[in-house]
Amino acid sequence: MAENKVFIFDTTLRDGEQVPGCKLNTPEKIALALELESLGVDIIEAGFPISSPGDFESVEQISKVITEATVCALSRAVKKDIETAAHALKYAKRPRIHTGIGTSDYHIKSKFNATREEIIERAIQAVTWARNFTDDVEFYAEDAGRAENAYLAKVIEAVIKAGATTVNIPDTTGYCLPHQYGEKIAYLINNVSNIDKAVISCHCHNDLGLATANSIAGVMNGARQIECTINGLGERAGNTSLEEVVMILKQHKHLGLYTDVNSKGLNPLSRLVSDTMRMPVQPNKAIVGANAFSHSSGIHQDGFLKDALTYEIIDPEEVGAEQSKIVLTARSGRSALAHRFQKLGFQFNRNDIDVLYESFLKVADSKKEVKDEDLQVLANHYQPQPQVA
Amino acid sequence: MAENKVFIFDTTLRDGEQVPGCKLNTPEKIALALELESLGVDIIEAGFPISSPGDFESVEQISKVITEATVCALSRAVKKDIETAAHALKYAKRPRIHTGIGTSDYHIKSKFNATREEIIERAIQAVTWARNFTDDVEFYAEDAGRAENAYLAKVIEAVIKAGATTVNIPDTTGYCLPHQYGEKIAYLINNVSNIDKAVISCHCHNDLGLATANSIAGVMNGARQIECTINGLGERAGNTSLEEVVMILKQHKHLGLYTDVNSKGLNPLSRLVSDTMRMPVQPNKAIVGANAFSHSSGIHQDGFLKDALTYEIIDPEEVGAEQSKIVLTARSGRSALAHRFQKLGFQFNRNDIDVLYESFLKVADSKKEVKDEDLQVLANHYQPQPQVA
Repeated sequence: MAENKVFIFDTTLRDGEQVPGCKLNTPEKIALALELESLGVDIIEAGFPISSPGDFESVEQISKVITEATVCALSRAVKKDIETAAHALKYAKRPRIHTGIGTSDYHIKSKFNATREEIIERAIQAVTWARNFTDDVEFYAEDAGRAENAYLAKVIEAVIKAGATTVNIPDTTGYCLPHQYGEKIAYLINNVSNIDKAVISCHCHNDLGLATANSIAGVMNGARQIECTINGLGERAGNTSLEEVVMILKQHKHLGLYTDVNSKGLNPLSRLVSDTMRMPVQPNKAIVGANAFSHSSGIHQDGFLKDALTYEIIDPEEVGAEQSKIVLTARSGRSALAHRFQKLGFQFNRNDIDVLYESFLKVADSKKEVKDEDLQVLANHYQPQPQVA
Repeated sequence: MAENKVFIFDTTLRDGEQVPGCKLNTPEKIALALELESLGVDIIEAGFPISSPGDFESVEQISKVITEATVCALSRAVKKDIETAAHALKYAKRPRIHTGIGTSDYHIKSKFNATREEIIERAIQAVTWARNFTDDVEFYAEDAGRAENAYLAKVIEAVIKAGATTVNIPDTTGYCLPHQYGEKIAYLINNVSNIDKAVISCHCHNDLGLATANSIAGVMNGARQIECTINGLGERAGNTSLEEVVMILKQHKHLGLYTDVNSKGLNPLSRLVSDTMRMPVQPNKAIVGANAFSHSSGIHQDGFLKDALTYEIIDPEEVGAEQSKIVLTARSGRSALAHRFQKLGFQFNRNDIDVLYESFLKVADSKKEVKDEDLQVLANHYQPQPQVA
């Protein structure tokens, strides 16, 4: 299978930034946009210009400084939104307008009080308006995850005909199971006659913890863009984590897919986003959590010390994380203890370690982590055992 | 399809507790075990008794207080481990011994320096030892995720013959993609002649963000137990999140699977575990994150206020979370603003709201969240507009 590029569309500055508490000012957004460009992201969604004067300014300023990546602005399927997005993007080297409308019956009826046919007309109109300003127009079929596939295919065919070059199939409520989302993408590939004229994009939410799996199911079935955020930030339970999809495609080369993201930048940028947006990353977060490469149980530590591959599929250096940590706790075993003593400069034999291990466990049962200072005390008090012949 | 029960095997107190910084004392473990039992968990893995005297005591004390759930203790495929596990479980009403050994070539060669045949012998021996103490023996085929399926099937057939009643197929390194893990389970169902005599269990790690999706793929292919932890705690990037798999099976009834977990207890127990283990849950964590039910963008708020179903698939009450929040930020729209003013007791018409919205955006661009106090100030300074006829 020939390798195929998956475009990485980062929406940390738009879908991530709309999270309670995450609001950024323009200089902060510019700084993050430049880092995203250095990371190798293909498209940076910089904001939703109609939403506020501050957001307009951010999109305009980001457009001025980004030289390689495409800069994208969000809009509803409303003329003034699209004009404002185009206006904010006027300095962009590669401007993209992202416009769209709800396509599930929930959205069509409850939100727009419209018919399916009216929605198609509004979708075509929005894409046509956007194409007046740029050749790079992305259409989002909001709540596509719960939309009927046959109707969704009609909408997608119509907007591609109207000039959409990317078609975004969002699982807006995070409802789909991976096989369902994959089947939806496959359905569009098989039932939209002009699908070869556009890139299919996955935009998955994480309400059930499945955003990453759904995005991967999407590209396995023919999509070639993933919309994601650093640390999985975003509305409610967030979006697909950029770091997760990038590393899955890198680890699973048999899928024949790749991205242009430089994985060594993942941990540094994760920390910068977390600090700037004041959004903590939990220690057990995949790829970028503080514990992602920590080994603490005895069984794992023993195997890891013999060969890192027994318990680790990613070299932490590959994702810009600190080297794997062996943390000594009451669940650690003798081999981790011996290894640490050796690093501290002590030469103990097996018998010594057996005795020291009993003292170590007493300390470990009373505290969360046994530090090097504790080991120094143990070693200094230790009386070597008489050897049995 | 008849509904089938999926057993929930919680390992918060074992795989979760071995995380750096998470160590609990015996009274804390007892308190959490009782809460897990109330939640409706089927099996509580209480610890790894050989690992330390403190852990032995915790398993023993938990065995005394748990009346409904099965209490499980971990061991390696080592006689002394198994005897110690049995000893710690002696007061348990429903004791389970969990024993096992590595089955991937990585583990067989690097960790055990053994042959495939020797590993099968040791596996049979371990299960035989364990069956001397209890009829409820679970065997884990460590690193099954990377083990060759044909060999794995031989191991599983042999341990079931030796008396294992549950067979755990761990993706120890978090390597598998959902379709691969699902195919592995299907392979065992189709190639292990005595597979009907045991329950297949999924134990998936989250190194690539796929633990939940892999566990669901497992049960869709015939597994009937999921090993998981509250908040997805566990070694490195953690285990499958209990709250996610429970809610996926509840939301996707067409799968024909269910658990006995009372979902209303999920958020309270998540907070208790986070507090007791001092492990923060990130705000964008599915089901139990602080923002899991927060709506902040204008597009989402407008839809949500018309009908919650447009952006929400789970009623927060169903998982014991506070009611969905509408947070007012610079990304909020007029409908959310009007709704909040109404809740605060102000009666404004559309024209009023249009004018107030401009003032609101100025405030919102300068701060992360616009609070009710800010709205009171805006409302009190507002001069009603002359109406155009």
